[in-house]
Parts: sequence; C-alpha cells; structure tokens
Amino acid sequence: MIKVSIIGATGYAGGEILRILINHPGVHIEAINSNTYAEMKYDTLYSGYKKIFEESLESINIRELANRSDVIFMAMPNGKAMEFVNEELLNQTKVIDLSGDFRLKDIDLYEKWYKIKHQESKSLKKAVYGLTEWKRDSIKEARLIANPGCYTTCSLLTLLPLLKENLIDSSHIFIDGKSGVSGAGKGLALGTHYPECNENIKAYKVAEHRHTPEIEAFISDMTSQSINLNFTPHLVPMNRGILCSAYTVVNNGVTIKTIQEVYEHYYSEEPFIRFRGDKQMPETKWVKGSNYCDIGYKHDERTGHLMLFGVIDNMMKGAAGQAVQNMNLLFGLEEQIGLNQIPLTI
Amino acid sequence: MIKVSIIGATGYAGGEILRILINHPGVHIEAINSNTYAEMKYDTLYSGYKKIFEESLESINIRELANRSDVIFMAMPNGKAMEFVNEELLNQTKVIDLSGDFRLKDIDLYEKWYKIKHQESKSLKKAVYGLTEWKRDSIKEARLIANPGCYTTCSLLTLLPLLKENLIDSSHIFIDGKSGVSGAGKGLALGTHYPECNENIKAYKVAEHRHTPEIEAFISDMTSQSINLNFTPHLVPMNRGILCSAYTVVNNGVTIKTIQEVYEHYYSEEPFIRFRGDKQMPETKWVKGSNYCDIGYKHDERTGHLMLFGVIDNMMKGAAGQAVQNMNLLFGLEEQIGLNQIPLTI
Amino acid sequence: MIKVSIIGATGYAGGEILRILINHPGVHIEAINSNTYAEMKYDTLYSGYKKIFEESLESINIRELANRSDVIFMAMPNGKAMEFVNEELLNQTKVIDLSGDFRLKDIDLYEKWYKIKHQESKSLKKAVYGLTEWKRDSIKEARLIANPGCYTTCSLLTLLPLLKENLIDSSHIFIDGKSGVSGAGKGLALGTHYPECNENIKAYKVAEHRHTPEIEAFISDMTSQSINLNFTPHLVPMNRGILCSAYTVVNNGVTIKTIQEVYEHYYSEEPFIRFRGDKQMPETKWVKGSNYCDIGYKHDERTGHLMLFGVIDNMMKGAAGQAVQNMNLLFGLEEQIGLNQIPLTI
Amino acid sequence: MIKVSIIGATGYAGGEILRILINHPGVHIEAINSNTYAEMKYDTLYSGYKKIFEESLESINIRELANRSDVIFMAMPNGKAMEFVNEELLNQTKVIDLSGDFRLKDIDLYEKWYKIKHQESKSLKKAVYGLTEWKRDSIKEARLIANPGCYTTCSLLTLLPLLKENLIDSSHIFIDGKSGVSGAGKGLALGTHYPECNENIKAYKVAEHRHTPEIEAFISDMTSQSINLNFTPHLVPMNRGILCSAYTVVNNGVTIKTIQEVYEHYYSEEPFIRFRGDKQMPETKWVKGSNYCDIGYKHDERTGHLMLFGVIDNMMKGAAGQAVQNMNLLFGLEEQIGLNQIPLTI
Repeated sequence: MIKVSIIGATGYAGGEILRILINHPGVHIEAINSNTYAEMKYDTLYSGYKKIFEESLESINIRELANRSDVIFMAMPNGKAMEFVNEELLNQTKVIDLSGDFRLKDIDLYEKWYKIKHQESKSLKKAVYGLTEWKRDSIKEARLIANPGCYTTCSLLTLLPLLKENLIDSSHIFIDGKSGVSGAGKGLALGTHYPECNENIKAYKVAEHRHTPEIEAFISDMTSQSINLNFTPHLVPMNRGILCSAYTVVNNGVTIKTIQEVYEHYYSEEPFIRFRGDKQMPETKWVKGSNYCDIGYKHDERTGHLMLFGVIDNMMKGAAGQAVQNMNLLFGLEEQIGLNQIPLTI
Repeated sequence: MIKVSIIGATGYAGGEILRILINHPGVHIEAINSNTYAEMKYDTLYSGYKKIFEESLESINIRELANRSDVIFMAMPNGKAMEFVNEELLNQTKVIDLSGDFRLKDIDLYEKWYKIKHQESKSLKKAVYGLTEWKRDSIKEARLIANPGCYTTCSLLTLLPLLKENLIDSSHIFIDGKSGVSGAGKGLALGTHYPECNENIKAYKVAEHRHTPEIEAFISDMTSQSINLNFTPHLVPMNRGILCSAYTVVNNGVTIKTIQEVYEHYYSEEPFIRFRGDKQMPETKWVKGSNYCDIGYKHDERTGHLMLFGVIDNMMKGAAGQAVQNMNLLFGLEEQIGLNQIPLTI
Repeated sequence: MIKVSIIGATGYAGGEILRILINHPGVHIEAINSNTYAEMKYDTLYSGYKKIFEESLESINIRELANRSDVIFMAMPNGKAMEFVNEELLNQTKVIDLSGDFRLKDIDLYEKWYKIKHQESKSLKKAVYGLTEWKRDSIKEARLIANPGCYTTCSLLTLLPLLKENLIDSSHIFIDGKSGVSGAGKGLALGTHYPECNENIKAYKVAEHRHTPEIEAFISDMTSQSINLNFTPHLVPMNRGILCSAYTVVNNGVTIKTIQEVYEHYYSEEPFIRFRGDKQMPETKWVKGSNYCDIGYKHDERTGHLMLFGVIDNMMKGAAGQAVQNMNLLFGLEEQIGLNQIPLTI
Repeated sequence: MIKVSIIGATGYAGGEILRILINHPGVHIEAINSNTYAEMKYDTLYSGYKKIFEESLESINIRELANRSDVIFMAMPNGKAMEFVNEELLNQTKVIDLSGDFRLKDIDLYEKWYKIKHQESKSLKKAVYGLTEWKRDSIKEARLIANPGCYTTCSLLTLLPLLKENLIDSSHIFIDGKSGVSGAGKGLALGTHYPECNENIKAYKVAEHRHTPEIEAFISDMTSQSINLNFTPHLVPMNRGILCSAYTVVNNGVTIKTIQEVYEHYYSEEPFIRFRGDKQMPETKWVKGSNYCDIGYKHDERTGHLMLFGVIDNMMKGAAGQAVQNMNLLFGLEEQIGLNQIPLTI
C-alpha cells in the first residue's frame, strides 16, 4: 500500500483527492493536514463524510510527514508549496503539487504572472509537468510533479495533437474557457456569492489569467516552437466542469481527414481521452465526476476556420483525478486504478 | 457472478442502476433492454458512457431474458411491470421492480391512487417491500421485490423508529417533501422545461401524491396500527436529492433523551443510515451521489412539537442504490458491495 | 414630490428600494447613504445602474439627512436603526425601517431572540407594524414604520384570515418556509458560497429563527389570543422567492366553503393579494420581481387537515415592495403607485 | 394610443412583448392571438398575470386584426409570418416580425439556412432590418420591420463600430456566443429538460446556426464589404442573458485610443448602449430584465489580438425590448418609452 498524505485536504481540490483515494485499492491514507483546521475531525468539516472518513486533521510537520509518507499531495494556494519543497524533502518522499509553483520552468515568467518571488529554483528544475498523456515517461521517474492547471489541462489536451503535427496556425489561437464555480475554490468572495454568480455569465481576468503562460510554455516544450495565444476564461453558473472552445485557422493543405487521423493517432488508445470526431461536440456533463477528457472539432467550410471543443471535470482530470493518475504512474500501478468513476449524467 | 438484466436502462432510474452495476465486483450485466431503443448502443443514447459501456440495447423478450438472468431489474412506468411478472417468470428468475406495481398489498388502494387496473394479484401477494433496513429477512428470501418510492424511503426511514416505539401522535403528522427535478423522470413536460422550473419552487400533487398511501401502508404494516398522514411534495430547482421535513407532536412523557436513544437503537449499526441527533440538520448535499440516508431532529421546547429531517439522493437510496442494496441481500452478498460511492459535496 | 433618502442602499433590500423608487413618479431621491461606501458612485458598486442612477453615496449625517428628507428608509443590519431613531428624529422626518428593531413591542422578546440590548423603547411604542393589508389605517398616521420580515409577511398574509375567523386550531400550526438565497443578504458566508448552496436544500435555524416571535406577536395582536407555532425555514437554490407551506388542523364544523369565503372576504379587493382557491397551488415564479402575494389552500379529506401555500418575492412584498407600498400610504398616494412591476415568469 | 396586436403572445418572446406593453403609456393592447390557445384567458396560461392582464386569446383572423390594429407584432416560428404578410396587409397595418422570415434580403441564403421556401419576396424587399441604433431613419419610415435575432443583435452592436471604421481584420473574427435557455423557446426538447441542461455547458449548432448569415449580411450592408465569420453558440444553465465574446485581430496601426474613441463616437449618446471601455468586462446580470446592451473590450498586448464582449438580455434587447423600441420609432414616440426596466442585479 502506498502511504499518502494530503496537505490542504480541506479545500476543494484536496478534498477531491481524498474522495478518490478513500476508495483506491492501493493506497493507505497516512495523514490529512491543515494548520488552520488541525485536530478537527474531517467529517466535522465535511458532514458528508460521516461513517466514511472520520480521521482528524494534523498540523503540518513536513519532515515528520515525509518520513511517514511515500507521497505527499500538496493542495495549497500558490506560493505555499515552495516553502515546503526542497531537495532534502524530495529525498525523503515524492511530492505531487497542485499549485502553480512548479509549473513554469522560467522563474521570471512565474514571478511576472504570479507576483510572488520564487524561492526554490533547484526543485523547480527537477519538477516534471504532470500532463499525464504527454509526459508519461518523465512522470514515472519524477520526485516532484507539478500537476497542471484545470484550464491548462483542457486546452492542452485539445490543442496539442494539432500543434505537434503543425496543422494549425499558431499565431491565431483563441481559447474561450468556461468553468464551473468550484474552479474558484472555497475562499469567499463577492463574485462567488450565490445571488451574484447565479443566473449570470461573465469573462474574467481577461488577458491576465495565469494559465495562459502555462499553456504557452508547455506547447513550446512539446513543439520546440515559441507561441503566444489568447486565453479568456468565463465563469458559468454550475458547480463542476470546464469547456474550452478553441478557435483557430487551419494551415494550408490540411484536410478534415488529416485532423481526424492525427487525433486518432494520439488518443484512440488513451484510457481517459475520448475523441468525438466532428459530429459530436462534447458537453461538460459527459465527464462530470469522472477523469475523462472529451474532444470534438468542427471545420467550417465557409471560413476555412477550425473550432475545437474539449471538456473535463475541473475537479477530476483538471485537478485531483489527474493527480491520482500521476500517482499511479509514479508507483508503477495501472494508470486507471481508483479512477473508475462514471460520469454523473444526471 | 450474478447475471443481471435491466429493463428500462434508458430512463433515469434504470440508468443509475447501470451506473452502479458497471463497477459492482459481483455482477455481470447480461442485458439492457428497451423496446423503444432496441439495437441502439448505450453510449449513443448516453454519450458519457463512451469507453465505459458500449453495449447495445435489446428488445424485451421476457422469457428468453429470464433464462439468461439471475435477476431482472424493472425500471418502467407504473403498470408495465405487472404485464411481465407472473408466477412462471418468478420461477425462472428474481425480479426487483422499481415501479409502484407491487408496493401496495391492497389492490383497491392501488387502483384508486394509480387509476390502473391491477392484473397480477398472485405475484403481488408474494412481493416483498424492499425498504432494506426494515425488511432484511424477508428480502433475503424474496423472488419479487417492490423497491420503495423515493419520497417513501426518505419519509419512512425518518419516521419509523418513533412510530414503532409509539413516541409521536400518529394523527398529527405532516411531511413536507422537497425533491430535485430528476425525480420527475426523463419524460418531457412543461413543468420540467428548464426556463419554467429553474428559479422556482412549488408544491405539486397536493393531497394526491401516490407515495402517500405507500407511506401509510408500510407504517401500518410495521406498527399494526392504521394511520393517515399528510404528505406534500415540492419541486426544487436542482438535479438530485430529497429532503423530507416532518412535523408532528410528541406523545406525553416523551423526552429528547428517549427520541435520541430510539434512533440510536435502530440506526447506529446501519451502514447507510447516519443519525445526526438534534444538533445537525441534514442537507441533501451530504448524501449526493451516495446511498446514505441522513436523519436529524429538533424538539421545539416552546411548542412541544417535533421536527424531523431526512435526506437521501433520490436516484440512489431513493431508487437505484436501494435496489442494488436489495440485490446484494437477495444473493447473499455483503450489503454494501458496489455502493461505496462517496457524496459529492461539490 | 416626496423627498426620500435610503440608508443602506448598497445592500440587497436597500438596493431594491432604490430600483423601485427610481421609476416612482411621486418620488425624488434626495440621498443614498452608507458610511462604508461614502463618496462612491452607485453605478461603480452596481455596474447595472450605469446611465440609470449614477449618484454618489453619502456618509450618514442623520440630523442633516432628516432635514432634507420627507422619509428615510433604513435598510441596515439589526441593532443599527435604533441608534439613529428617536423622538427628535421622528419629529423631523418619517422613518420606514426594514430591520427587526421596531417589530416586536415586547422588549424582552426582542432581546431574547436578537441577543441585542434594545435602546429605544420610546420610539418602539409609537412604531406601527407595516403589514400593509392589515394595518392600513395605522400606517397612514405613523411616523415610524417597522417593515415586516420576509417570511413573516408571507406567513401572516396566508394565515391571518383563518386565524382571525377562528377556523383553524392555533395549537397545531407548522410553517415550512422556503426562501431563495437573496434572503440571506449580501454578506459573505460559506453557506451562501455558490458551490456550497447550489444543488442543495436544507433547513436552517430550526426552532430559532427570529421571524417566529414576529409571526406569533402579530397574530396575537390581531386575534387577541396568545399563540405558539412552529416555523422552519429552508434555503432553496434560487435567487428570489419565498414559499410558505403551512400545515394545520381545521376546527370542528369548518368547511371548504367557509375557508373559501373567508379568504375572498378579506382579499378579493386587495390589489396585491391574489387568492387562488384550492385548485391552484401558487409558485414563487408567479410573483417574481413583483409585489404580489399569491395564496392557495387544499383541504385533505382523508385526514381532515389543511395545507396552505403563500408565495411572495422576498425582495419585493417581503421587503422593498411592501416598504414602498407603506410609503405610498404614509404620504396619501395611491397604494399601487410605482409597484406595477409584472412578474418575470421567465 | 397605438392599437397593438400580438400574434404568438403565448410564446416567450411574445409574452415578453406583452409584459412590456401592459405598462407602456402610449399603447392600447387591442388583441392577443393564438390559434392553439384561442378563447383561453391569458392568466390561465400564465398564472402570474392574474389581476394584471386577464384578456382572452383570439384566433388569428389576419384581415380583421389588421383593421383593428395600428401595428401587429408577430412572434411565431420561422416560416409563419410570411404566410400572413403581403402588400395588402402592409397597406392596412404595420408589422414587426420577430422571426427570421424577413431578415435576409437574399432569398437563396434564407432558403439554404432555414430549409424553408420563401413565399413573400415582395414584402421582403420592403422590410427594414430593425437593429435600432444602426437603422433609425429607415425604421421610422417602415411598414414591415424584421426584428433582429438575439445573438445577432449582441454580435452586431459589439462589432459594427470597429468594422465600420475598418479597425479589425474581417477575415479573422470568431464569435463565441453564450445564451440562457429561454433563447431556445418554450417548445419541449430533451436538451432543455431541466435535469439535462442544468449543471451543463455545451456548444450547439456549430457552424450551422442561422444567426451567422444574418450577422454577415448586415455587416456587409453596413460596410459594403463581403464578410465571412465564425459564430459558435453555447447553452448556459441560466434563464436569461446573452454574452458574445468576440476574438479578432487589430489592423495595422490601430491603437487602444482609436478603439476607445470609435466606440465612444458611435455609442456615447445611445440611451440603451453602455460602453464600458477596457477596464470593465460586462456581465449578463448587468442588463438582466432591461433593454441595455453593454460592451467592453480588451487588447492583449502580448498577442496583439483583441477581445470584445457584449451582453444583452436575450428576451429584451434581443427580442421584445428592441421590438418595442422599434415600435416607438415607428410611431414617432420617444424611443425609450415603456423601456425603463432597471436590471435585476439580483
């Protein structure tokens, strides 16, 4: 059994990791940690866990925790994980971090977009970006995994095959992201107060969202080509789910047949990616509560432009689900173990 | 492996049975059946099932189906199951019926409330009412299980301990039921058209809902005492969940201590019932997506009256979950197998 | 033109008063006041008001404000209005207060339920409870109106005719209140964070809600009879609307005909009350955005019990709408002026 | 008083026209018409209208109706208005049609996108496209107004100033439309059944939505330049509101200053358009229930691309509101009369 600890199990992403791992056959939950809620029983905070998981939260003693854990999930606000992670820690245990701290290799880029001074460049160099389907081999060998952002995961899985094969014009890519409100986390804010965001849709952080450089950096990494694109997130009045609608231009000579074949080549064997072709545009409900990413596209013959649609559950493939998928790889388990949740179509 | 068939797997309740059974370790899904959608692949109807369950629906040949199946789940509109069920069929296979056809032992009562002529009184006599926690022994021996209604399950689990021990005045019981819209099923109607029922709450079928005689009949069965009560259902703008708020009067001399002890006596060992005492009033979210029933109460010292609150997921404990729980009993499996879904608190 | 000021125009109730008064033909808005947001333009806080109402908020100088205003609406948290209101102020201007400060004549009762020391017993004595349809004559003469609570308004309008005529058993009244989330106000709390209260229903403040003594006290006032009843509020995932479902027992000899006639007697001429009889159970959508209160009932022949249903828009008839209705009376205007908003059925 | 009739007052758009006109000081509602619901009282169909509007629907006798009416609003499915409209009718009365029948001057284009044979080319030639802010002079003289589509209105108002002044690259325009469910109308369909579209977001009719040629045709009309663009609608789980996010590329030399000035030039004096600049991205809630269109933009310095955001209430400025605005013009009234509804921010 893998001994697992979760720092930040009281937030939405950390809670979702716990929800998955409780039923994971290869895992022992060693500890759940939170300085704010230390000593509290988990089912006191989350009443739904009564008779399911009634352990108490522990305050964070990182050394001691590393000794007891084969892997630590860190699900904290940006800037916190780098206070805990360093070479010594990574010698003791493995870390899967869900924040943005270890996603951008370029420290200047991190500091510019996050407005936080980066303190742990050494570990950053060793961090592996955990977009499972595109980094399997590196993930298996990693000590520190930077689990991708939710919008990023959805955007990259949708765009990468076409960019990798150079089928679309990388100077004209517009991603219109649409997310359920859980993506904003558990912290209180007027924008997520029920009467304010119910019956409303809006764009937010336009041209400023931190997942933008993350998308660009990983595309560059995969295609050895620098790229700038537009990512515009929107808040949708629902709890879970992300839909990324991407708009772009097809390169000369590219046909629907090519697009179709490229997607099939990359994804037909993938357990968690379901390519839908150009007849079915995916809906967030098709993946709700599960670790799937569904992708469809449409080529508009009138304009020659291409529309791509990717959906994930932001809490699952966009956060906790992918983190567990990475953990499975990290410990040589079958990738799908513990991730057999079926979409809640209703 | 138990060979299972599901008639009506394209409706909400039948679909939920399928969702549970796909991950059930003791079950082989022999067939899913629908005359309307025969030959169609399930993942064509429910796109979320791609790569999960891609079998085709079969038209209903009941004899042949009985030969291939250890148990048949019937999830059809009222009046349909009794066309299929008879002694011969029950000799071949077991049946768990989710409709109202075999819930009321009194045929006159059935015909009065359902406006349908009952055609199968022989099987009706043998049917066991499948409120698991209160009928375990009979369920284990049954050939035909009448799976309880959603509101009924929630109301009965909440009220029965107090009625059984004669703690409350059975002539003053008011149940205010509140259900998510999935309870109305998949059939189209103006009342469940999104713009009509979104941002709205209403009572419906006041003094006319068919779960009323079902609640009364089972209470009479359990307490050997005739009872008439008021049940008033309301439609809540959300997908899943039932909250039954019950209002009643405490009998002379009954104290909070008695109430507390009686509930604990009946339910503390129950795997799927979580008694919350008088400090936590349960919310539907605490059980969403799971098979739990949570119960709380409050005694109002000012009036001497008692308020009871029970919640379930109407699709799970209120339909498919309880049906699978009953199936487990029916085949000697551990009752909780396949029902380890954790509430989706978000 | 009536010169009006609104203290607390940045909250939900105060904002709704402003929304109504901007289009009110007999009103000049003299000032909107808030110490927290003083100097800010209203359309900066509420972007929807651009080109509609772009005045700046003023800090609260109560004497000066009284000099400029024929009436001051106070829409502040409980305990604040009594800091401003006193005899001197009421000699200068009229006050319509939307808090609980002047609703309960019994100071002990106020202090017990509100846990706040009452500081202004003199003004309290003169305050008129502003349930318009039942206090018209007193309202016309008032200097200080205590505008009723939202649940209270809905409960009282529904119950009063039957209690006044002694048709129901006042020792068995259970009110199950269901409110949209705007009723909880603009203050941030985990319980009104979108992902928490969306897709959820729950009871709250069971046996402890402050509208309980308010309902009881006004019934006593109207019927000269002491009464204790149960009021249980529930939070519904929608923005606006209150449905009160009341359960009770009919007194000996009372028939449907009597009930029908009594309601018609009291309400058939009322402009804002729409009695629906026993064939139409009202829905919150029927009154959304308007000042109407719709009432229906059902007598259950099987049990002899009575179910009553009242709906209002909690922001309108439950707060700002009724406040303006009272203002109209207070200044001799036609009661309906400015309140011709038609329900937004979609 | 203008004598007005509404054909199709039982649908969502027709009902919204009625809601506005009941309070319009210059209008007498002569008749509401529907063959399906003839003789029925309006408040029987829409219970919210009791005591507000209790007239009966009349079956459609178009000649007789024309005689009694100064203007007829037609709010019917596509293909129906052209059965009623012809030169003779337009000599008798004016018509404001909310369907697509008279929006596209090119009959081939209409037949290709609507799959309906056009039968009334003569009237089509005389029809004026009713995008108020851009066609005022023609509207004043019209006999037949083709009221614009909801997405079209929002897209055009957002894009036209920049296209008219040639600031953006017309070969790279992607419009991502997001609409509340009322846009799909009152007709029942699985996709708008509450449990299906609640908690879900999806694109639909990708590259096939009929508002696409309507947007293109009017841009061509205004700029004398042929254009092809991508329009992709999405269904959002809320009742009202449209947000169009448009992505495009700025022409050489165009600065933020130019964009800002052009928008201000066209819209600063417009009563129903509120230009927000590049600091406020508009939300649908800012216009909910009102006739406003709010527009914002953001230039992304990193990519040189431009993001535009326009919001309307699809039932108001996107249908009934604009129709009444056009009626006001048609009869020489002040354009804003009857349209002073303030956004329901909650």
